[in-house]
Amino acid sequence: MFDLIAFDADDTLWENETNYHRTQDKFIQLLSRYHSREWIEKRLYETEMRNMQPFGYGVKAFVLSMIETAVELTEGRIQGTEIQRIIDYGKEMLHSEVQLLEGVEETINELSKSYELMIITKGDLIDQQTKIARSGLAGCFRHVEVVSHKTAESYRAILSRYQVDPSRFVMIGNSLKSDVLPVVELGGAAVYIPHHLTWAHETVAEADPGTNGYYELENIRLLPAFLTELGQGKNSR
Amino acid sequence: MFDLIAFDADDTLWENETNYHRTQDKFIQLLSRYHSREWIEKRLYETEMRNMQPFGYGVKAFVLSMIETAVELTEGRIQGTEIQRIIDYGKEMLHSEVQLLEGVEETINELSKSYELMIITKGDLIDQQTKIARSGLAGCFRHVEVVSHKTAESYRAILSRYQVDPSRFVMIGNSLKSDVLPVVELGGAAVYIPHHLTWAHETVAEADPGTNGYYELENIRLLPAFLTELGQGKNSR
Repeated sequence: MFDLIAFDADDTLWENETNYHRTQDKFIQLLSRYHSREWIEKRLYETEMRNMQPFGYGVKAFVLSMIETAVELTEGRIQGTEIQRIIDYGKEMLHSEVQLLEGVEETINELSKSYELMIITKGDLIDQQTKIARSGLAGCFRHVEVVSHKTAESYRAILSRYQVDPSRFVMIGNSLKSDVLPVVELGGAAVYIPHHLTWAHETVAEADPGTNGYYELENIRLLPAFLTELGQGKNSR
Repeated sequence: MFDLIAFDADDTLWENETNYHRTQDKFIQLLSRYHSREWIEKRLYETEMRNMQPFGYGVKAFVLSMIETAVELTEGRIQGTEIQRIIDYGKEMLHSEVQLLEGVEETINELSKSYELMIITKGDLIDQQTKIARSGLAGCFRHVEVVSHKTAESYRAILSRYQVDPSRFVMIGNSLKSDVLPVVELGGAAVYIPHHLTWAHETVAEADPGTNGYYELENIRLLPAFLTELGQGKNSR
């Protein structure tokens, strides 16, 4: 069986990318008298990538990148009140209701009765922690780890801290790059549950399910039966 | 003896508050044609306190609070290029050299030979992690924990995760509120090493060293001899 079942949070347990899209739409609207949607999107994405190193992931980094893009694209003509509006978009994101994805509540509640569950999420510490608190699921997870990057190295560090052997670890998430491939590299089991929206930065060039050593499920509801089956397979080896 | 010796980072291992002061001075300069230093300082501090809940600690939160204050205090007349300058102040802070406090390098190197060392720091995840990397001391610390709040509860959770009994734990830091009092509450040993600058938000009304169950050292260089003595005291009980 497994000693630890870990879940990604954003777009695995709850909607996240849709919130960013919604805010980005408001931002594009705000600048629509200066530039076209395509151009604003392109420049915002470039700013986000450039700011990844100093600012990392999360709402605050996103707000700072929107402000920088607004100053740049308006050649400094952006108004103070419009800047304030961009900051307020961020505050709204941080206070917005956490929308659990379909099937998450029942599945996590069910799994928490049989397994030790953990959240491993990338991003801004306070941002992620308050989302977990607002999700109503905090009580189901024994541990929460917020990391700045999800690499084989960062998973290895977590497993060593909790004294869990990779062969007894399963990671579930919507990002092949962050949740699946590094765990497979370590010798753990990984379950890929795609989300209809994935941020461009999180996509990998290609991945061929079935031959790359990970599993794919269409919906989180399929997870309990799948984990039972997978655990039995392990026991019979 | 002790199983785990943990250090706060900002203003315990390296200068931090001075960087915030330096940046705040530039910010006051930027707004000097609108308002007096005292008024700008007062309003910035109010904005920071108001933004603590959505934004948490760290450079990004500080930049967002400076921008908000600038918009407010100029009634929206702040220029886009000035806003960009405020964001650049933040980037400079995130890239600036980490200045170790006097005696830190030798002391931490020495202690790392005899004890398991950890950093427990509050703040922004990526901000703190890159400072640890830039400090040159990362190799001396077995573990790093970045937390959003330092309460008895958060220390309890860390100690339980590492399976360390509070009676075998020592915490060292410059904040009575965050590093010392919660650890004493748990039954751990706490060593207070004051720093000449402590952010107003981190001060507690009063504390009487000696009767409150913690120790105070003037300089980190005194720590190795002190820990040896303290450990022997424990053994003889």
